[in-house]
Amino acid sequence: MKILIIQTGGTIDKDYPKTNNGYAFEINEPASKRILENAFPGFEYEIVSLFRKDSQEITREDRDKLKSYLLNHSADKILITHGSDTLIETAQFVGNISGKAIVLTGAFIPERFTNSDAAFNIGVAIGALNLMHEGTFIAMNGMVFLANRVEKNANTGMFEKQ
Amino acid sequence: MKILIIQTGGTIDKDYPKTNNGYAFEINEPASKRILENAFPGFEYEIVSLFRKDSQEITREDRDKLKSYLLNHSADKILITHGSDTLIETAQFVGNISGKAIVLTGAFIPERFTNSDAAFNIGVAIGALNLMHEGTFIAMNGMVFLANRVEKNANTGMFEKQ
Amino acid sequence: MKILIIQTGGTIDKDYPKTNNGYAFEINEPASKRILENAFPGFEYEIVSLFRKDSQEITREDRDKLKSYLLNHSADKILITHGSDTLIETAQFVGNISGKAIVLTGAFIPERFTNSDAAFNIGVAIGALNLMHEGTFIAMNGMVFLANRVEKNANTGMFEKQ
Amino acid sequence: MKILIIQTGGTIDKDYPKTNNGYAFEINEPASKRILENAFPGFEYEIVSLFRKDSQEITREDRDKLKSYLLNHSADKILITHGSDTLIETAQFVGNISGKAIVLTGAFIPERFTNSDAAFNIGVAIGALNLMHEGTFIAMNGMVFLANRVEKNANTGMFEKQ
Repeated sequence: MKILIIQTGGTIDKDYPKTNNGYAFEINEPASKRILENAFPGFEYEIVSLFRKDSQEITREDRDKLKSYLLNHSADKILITHGSDTLIETAQFVGNISGKAIVLTGAFIPERFTNSDAAFNIGVAIGALNLMHEGTFIAMNGMVFLANRVEKNANTGMFEKQ
Repeated sequence: MKILIIQTGGTIDKDYPKTNNGYAFEINEPASKRILENAFPGFEYEIVSLFRKDSQEITREDRDKLKSYLLNHSADKILITHGSDTLIETAQFVGNISGKAIVLTGAFIPERFTNSDAAFNIGVAIGALNLMHEGTFIAMNGMVFLANRVEKNANTGMFEKQ
Repeated sequence: MKILIIQTGGTIDKDYPKTNNGYAFEINEPASKRILENAFPGFEYEIVSLFRKDSQEITREDRDKLKSYLLNHSADKILITHGSDTLIETAQFVGNISGKAIVLTGAFIPERFTNSDAAFNIGVAIGALNLMHEGTFIAMNGMVFLANRVEKNANTGMFEKQ
Repeated sequence: MKILIIQTGGTIDKDYPKTNNGYAFEINEPASKRILENAFPGFEYEIVSLFRKDSQEITREDRDKLKSYLLNHSADKILITHGSDTLIETAQFVGNISGKAIVLTGAFIPERFTNSDAAFNIGVAIGALNLMHEGTFIAMNGMVFLANRVEKNANTGMFEKQ
């Protein structure tokens, strides 16, 4: 098994700013890298950073770039890390791509935090990638959803089956 | 989705001994509890502790007890945390149980450690449980194996497809 | 030994916002509480939250409130956690108070982060409180400074002896 | 300020064994190294590993070696990390050395654990080293003791003033 991992940004990769007087987070190195360094993975993987954005700032151009990248890459198992706010929108924009299993995930608490959900979520996504051969899925809250059968509950922030 | 989680012991649950002059680890509270407290789970779960053993000390009686417990419980999605040394043996002993998806996992580094693989592994197992309806599987090294198609490489400690 | 610990805010107590779409950090429960819960302390302590502010937002009124609180409290060993930007200003405003050893500290990375300096810094401050009987000090970068003999290097962010 | 840090072993440096079927901990790289990498230290330091032993296994020869090392080294501020069981014995064996401030510390939970007291303890010791010019001290439980005025409570494991 070989997995292509694509960073797009979001909470999972938020880090404490190095600059003085830092106010907000900054999106930094892919958290997936640190997680897999501790994971004793039995599969091959490659991590690519396409962009590092809060998911509310991801544009139509960014999504076009992501989709082109996916269409032109030979990988058949792909993990995309993404901010949760527009994760569903991106997943549906990507849609199904013939011969590719794609799973999008993210985190509610950055991987840098001691109480983060990031390693668990990356695990759920990779568990799904082991078993899926085609289709675009979302792994959040320990659940695996079809990209077009999920909504984010505006009150709780939880991803739920539609 | 509802998942029954069964603790049997192993590295994943090893904790630092509270007693003075502690030399070896002790197997303590289920690590799965702490992991899921940070995971914002969208599924229901129940954690049961059947035993707390180094997997090399698990006996035929223990495995009988585990199998009886599985057969008599109504749960159809079950996660078993287990030491890695005899994890395959237990999985094969349990075998397939009609109507139940069972995934065994563990860890190479205890969940209490900052560099543990436990949260990731629990994630992989739960990712697999989302998608499987029947059969007994092993989730280790980020891979999901059929219980009767896996071996542990004696040199590397890695789980590999047989 | 008994130590009064006063929270004023700053990076040390920054937490990930619970609200959806959270952009910046929020200053939350005192990190000193979590640190001391793991520290097996042999001294008594009480934690008081006076305010929870980014140190650049601390006003003259806040500092008056802090100084009054110190003057009116019977504690003779006091640890103040504070944002680093105006930590020196607050320390000098407080000045020496007869019969009281006061140490201000903070962190460059929030205690919630896996790579935080918070526990170390709280340790340095408490090490100093063990040995000092009077005076106001700053414990940052593993160094203990007199409040009126320290400056923050604007380029590096490091606290240095003046 | 320049601090010489000497590793002798003990709980603080216990790590999970890399070998298969590992039962007990192994004493590995100095935890002080990882702690100071996150600490933004404003002082110079050098870390030396003299031995890596459970403190109950430290012999008279080991203590002679340590004392010789201290006597022959030019450092005037020294931090010794040590197992807690015989930490007092070693401190008293070293005794006062003219012109040197020496602080011994350790941990009740290894630095590798998420709930470790190691970073805090190293902080307390370094806080004390900032202020002391001569004498041998023990920093444990957030307290700084003179080496000949402390005992370990056999029931609680806590270090207490004698």
